[in-house]
Amino acid sequence: MSRLPVVVLGATGMVGQRIVQRLAGHPSLRVAAVAASERSIGRPYAEACTWRLAGAPFGEAADLPVLPCDPGAMPAGARTALSALDAGPARDIEGAFRGAGWAVVSNASAWRSDPLVPLVVPEVNPDHLGLTGQQPGPGYIVTNPNCCAVPLSLVLAPLHRRFGVEAVVASTWQAVSGAGYPGESAWDMVGNVHPHSASEERKLQTEPCKILGEPGRPAAIPISARCVRVPVADGHLVSAQIRLGGGPAPEEVVRALASWAPGIPAIPSSPRPLFHFARHRDRPSPRFDADNGDGMAVTVGNVEACPVMGVKLFCLAHNTVRGAAGAAIANVELLQALDLLP
Amino acid sequence: MSRLPVVVLGATGMVGQRIVQRLAGHPSLRVAAVAASERSIGRPYAEACTWRLAGAPFGEAADLPVLPCDPGAMPAGARTALSALDAGPARDIEGAFRGAGWAVVSNASAWRSDPLVPLVVPEVNPDHLGLTGQQPGPGYIVTNPNCCAVPLSLVLAPLHRRFGVEAVVASTWQAVSGAGYPGESAWDMVGNVHPHSASEERKLQTEPCKILGEPGRPAAIPISARCVRVPVADGHLVSAQIRLGGGPAPEEVVRALASWAPGIPAIPSSPRPLFHFARHRDRPSPRFDADNGDGMAVTVGNVEACPVMGVKLFCLAHNTVRGAAGAAIANVELLQALDLLP
Amino acid sequence: MSRLPVVVLGATGMVGQRIVQRLAGHPSLRVAAVAASERSIGRPYAEACTWRLAGAPFGEAADLPVLPCDPGAMPAGARTALSALDAGPARDIEGAFRGAGWAVVSNASAWRSDPLVPLVVPEVNPDHLGLTGQQPGPGYIVTNPNCCAVPLSLVLAPLHRRFGVEAVVASTWQAVSGAGYPGESAWDMVGNVHPHSASEERKLQTEPCKILGEPGRPAAIPISARCVRVPVADGHLVSAQIRLGGGPAPEEVVRALASWAPGIPAIPSSPRPLFHFARHRDRPSPRFDADNGDGMAVTVGNVEACPVMGVKLFCLAHNTVRGAAGAAIANVELLQALDLLP
Amino acid sequence: MSRLPVVVLGATGMVGQRIVQRLAGHPSLRVAAVAASERSIGRPYAEACTWRLAGAPFGEAADLPVLPCDPGAMPAGARTALSALDAGPARDIEGAFRGAGWAVVSNASAWRSDPLVPLVVPEVNPDHLGLTGQQPGPGYIVTNPNCCAVPLSLVLAPLHRRFGVEAVVASTWQAVSGAGYPGESAWDMVGNVHPHSASEERKLQTEPCKILGEPGRPAAIPISARCVRVPVADGHLVSAQIRLGGGPAPEEVVRALASWAPGIPAIPSSPRPLFHFARHRDRPSPRFDADNGDGMAVTVGNVEACPVMGVKLFCLAHNTVRGAAGAAIANVELLQALDLLP
Repeated sequence: MSRLPVVVLGATGMVGQRIVQRLAGHPSLRVAAVAASERSIGRPYAEACTWRLAGAPFGEAADLPVLPCDPGAMPAGARTALSALDAGPARDIEGAFRGAGWAVVSNASAWRSDPLVPLVVPEVNPDHLGLTGQQPGPGYIVTNPNCCAVPLSLVLAPLHRRFGVEAVVASTWQAVSGAGYPGESAWDMVGNVHPHSASEERKLQTEPCKILGEPGRPAAIPISARCVRVPVADGHLVSAQIRLGGGPAPEEVVRALASWAPGIPAIPSSPRPLFHFARHRDRPSPRFDADNGDGMAVTVGNVEACPVMGVKLFCLAHNTVRGAAGAAIANVELLQALDLLP
Repeated sequence: MSRLPVVVLGATGMVGQRIVQRLAGHPSLRVAAVAASERSIGRPYAEACTWRLAGAPFGEAADLPVLPCDPGAMPAGARTALSALDAGPARDIEGAFRGAGWAVVSNASAWRSDPLVPLVVPEVNPDHLGLTGQQPGPGYIVTNPNCCAVPLSLVLAPLHRRFGVEAVVASTWQAVSGAGYPGESAWDMVGNVHPHSASEERKLQTEPCKILGEPGRPAAIPISARCVRVPVADGHLVSAQIRLGGGPAPEEVVRALASWAPGIPAIPSSPRPLFHFARHRDRPSPRFDADNGDGMAVTVGNVEACPVMGVKLFCLAHNTVRGAAGAAIANVELLQALDLLP
Repeated sequence: MSRLPVVVLGATGMVGQRIVQRLAGHPSLRVAAVAASERSIGRPYAEACTWRLAGAPFGEAADLPVLPCDPGAMPAGARTALSALDAGPARDIEGAFRGAGWAVVSNASAWRSDPLVPLVVPEVNPDHLGLTGQQPGPGYIVTNPNCCAVPLSLVLAPLHRRFGVEAVVASTWQAVSGAGYPGESAWDMVGNVHPHSASEERKLQTEPCKILGEPGRPAAIPISARCVRVPVADGHLVSAQIRLGGGPAPEEVVRALASWAPGIPAIPSSPRPLFHFARHRDRPSPRFDADNGDGMAVTVGNVEACPVMGVKLFCLAHNTVRGAAGAAIANVELLQALDLLP
Repeated sequence: MSRLPVVVLGATGMVGQRIVQRLAGHPSLRVAAVAASERSIGRPYAEACTWRLAGAPFGEAADLPVLPCDPGAMPAGARTALSALDAGPARDIEGAFRGAGWAVVSNASAWRSDPLVPLVVPEVNPDHLGLTGQQPGPGYIVTNPNCCAVPLSLVLAPLHRRFGVEAVVASTWQAVSGAGYPGESAWDMVGNVHPHSASEERKLQTEPCKILGEPGRPAAIPISARCVRVPVADGHLVSAQIRLGGGPAPEEVVRALASWAPGIPAIPSSPRPLFHFARHRDRPSPRFDADNGDGMAVTVGNVEACPVMGVKLFCLAHNTVRGAAGAAIANVELLQALDLLP
């Protein structure tokens, strides 16, 4: 089978590098072009990139020249873009690709809150892709959520279906890769942690509602988030105290998670099992668990009774894989499986 | 004025070292003896101790011989003990000192939940010291709380008086010094975080209730705690989502904290101001704020509206100072100021 | 082809876990039994082990009962042991297995300096395996070097052959996994580094000489080592200032490394290429480079002129893979390829 | 006694903040003005600064308006500037202040290698200040060395006087604060180390020679340096293998250091003792020893025989205090004591 050509926008940044790396040898997708900002244009990807990931560098893109982020500059035949752009430039560039008839699958936050743009976790709300008839033009944008909103939504989804989620208090221990590169200053993070921005907390308070709701009608779940950066390379740990309809016991919550079967076609980036359950009380722990399921699983632990909200648990996912690069790739895979790509 | 002789039990451990260091040059207390476990006995303190703190080592105790933890071995004239023992040996040893008529001011958890033993934060519940007529014998034990329960209780106290605290969801980012020495394995903590034990969460769920309640009658406040160890040397960051009577705005909460005047005599280890308020949203942050008020202040930040509980905030304190060594010293100072020492 | 049964001694520790993990799916070796100390005996490996590595746990040994470290307790058919024992127990236990006719391939330091026991890096001194006719008995012990001595010896070997190594000054930045588990205290390592023990420096000063010399006649190369522990999980960085015969230019040194072809049969754990050359001046760097070549490559960087010794360079290897578990496995593979196993 | 007014150039950066903080309450110097780059000008220092140090913020400068780095904008009466500028702008700005008749005491590297500009460690080469009759103009520039060159020069000085230093191999474990703020990326430093730039190694290879030589005639000591950044907040650890005339034993080296009395007037920032000697083999260690002597002492450890160079030792100093802010202040103090300030 031939692999569908895709282009990567913002390919030289940390999430862009992860996308390129993970698409090397992908069964159904192939990087046909890489695009980035002004100063990289025209140079071979291997030179333009300061590669900052462990593992084989540059994927299959080492010799590709970096192109401008312009639909007119893209190779003929490609009509699908994975975007790892920063929120700032993403708004215009992704809009331009959509206007030119492209499917844009974006990791940026620029379009996430637009009611016409679906915010999709493949296993949770594939039906939201129906929204993809966006105005104007034949193209569309699909986004994936904030890196903490992904594992939280994945954990809440089975519970919302089974019991109804009434309210959530969430706290995070977030890895530095979430800030991109250079991102966080080492001076701030050596032997230190610090509260994250208000906008990060806002995303975690609103995005799960959009994902768990009906298309165009977010679920009305009050979520209170406290987000803190910690000196971890990769892997966001999230704690959630959850009020559920009927006040189920922790064991029922575990059962609801363990037995959940997402109703989607098999796609390479959705692992089986989706949830790993930690065997020890001091887990999940990012350095040990972030790579579970090739970085796409969610590891759950310490599901226990909570005297305030009913039940509490920890969940953990790799923030630049399940929470960014892998999330975008999974969305493309799902669109491809559903035959929704242009 | 002559300085009251005190002895330090468990003097060679991390909290014991902090007590000895902080009592160097103390205006009204003087280390008359240091006691520790079998293998240190008879050696000069400076040799018995592997000193693991920055700053001048050994306080005024460098040449003191390490004594056994036995009231019969203590120098004549001393009747007050500060205990930094582990919970295991603390139960019997502290009980023996009490039985021999000593005032034992303990950092251990062994006696904290005993209804006859007061659990005291000087600025919050000095009235609990009335409990000190303990059976059996003329001696007594006074304990200070768990290192996270201290800042949480200090922040909740003014709010409980002013509004009534109805429920709390707390999360922690706890420094490794809380585990003593050697404590946490570096393998577990390099670029990593992990959930803490259930007993730590239990302490944080129960101790503030005892502190905020009447003597013998803990306050009935549901508290849900999630405790996580992070690779920070000193300083526990605590987030709290709080449901308060009347649902005050964040500004009213700040005012209640800023205007609070604890009703205790001036003691050296209770700083003025007690609360520092962070000027930036990425604070409080342990490496920058743990030493505020010589390690005895609580730094508060990001007091904001919470869609689930009403108000949310961060607070931070130095866990082995305000949360351990300094807490015990402050309790001795208060007992001395109230003329309650034997 | 059937896989040769081997047993792992000290299987529950950090290096033992790595051996078990890396032998899962090995083409020619199979874990037939796991052995450990008293408190684990009789329990299934998956229960006896607190698994502390990322990746799938327990290899193929999850259900194997832990056996005592006694040749009489081993399953019939196995005659090859990989030992990850601590130096203390290793001396007697490895001696007993040897006495019982086993091939013992050991990561411990207990027997490394015994003149009758070869200290082998497969690519460097396979000829030392001729020593394996050890007294007493038909069995033998083969050891692999200290975790820093491995990359240093690998880098020095081609240079010694080509130019003659006259003297070396080496410094290290060593990961905490080198201390085993729990090993280093997190209190000592959070935002901190500290000098290593004198015995570590001694190993790095003597082991390369034994490896680079003739069997029984160590090379007479003065080596000065300064070893420092740093808060890194895996991967030892080593710097070496080297005095070489003829004073070659840095480019000649690079060429000697790049063109070196070890004269050994192809074995699964010896990667091609053996040396990776860093592309940027701030590399090699452990988090990015330790896993090169599946943890068995050595990454070299910044080969430059040195005003004191002639040439200086950095080299880096994964300390518990190339420097421990993988080193032992590679030695077994080489013995198997040379038909030297019992 | 009235305190001499001084101005701080580059006052909002990490070293500038340290200078301002350490001058609070200084016995003979007073911050009369703070100057910084364009975007801060006109704002009160407390607002212009994102304060990034533990301890009381803003020194005595909280309300001072930030001025441009222009001698014409400075308050009347001040003629001494402490410069914490980056090397780039330092060249022109410091030159302009010198041209306007100021004494400029600089931490920047811009002028360090100029043969007419002295590079001074107060305890080592106060006689170099004789150079201060610089052309053109009546003003002058005095610089302090690179943050690693300071402790190395301090340790080499007594040895050079006593034995003659013939060659040095130095390695470093350098804290992130040496890179300023934001400086190093946390992504590069979480659980990681990496080689430093070639220019850093060059400074460490040349600056001690200028300091230990005669004015205008650097000492001809070959120094080989390998510099590595480690995830430590403050405190550079340096190892040195040293070839000394006559090949003294380690004990003689210790004696030469311990008995050394720098021939300078007492100044507040030169601690007594200057050298601390570590009591344990795993010291000096930055988190425990960087603050010795209020950040101005050098801690020495593990002075031992070296099979290649003769003797080896570790030394450690606080890089932004003894290696930067405190170094500049000490130079001003010495100039003041010698009555060399304008």
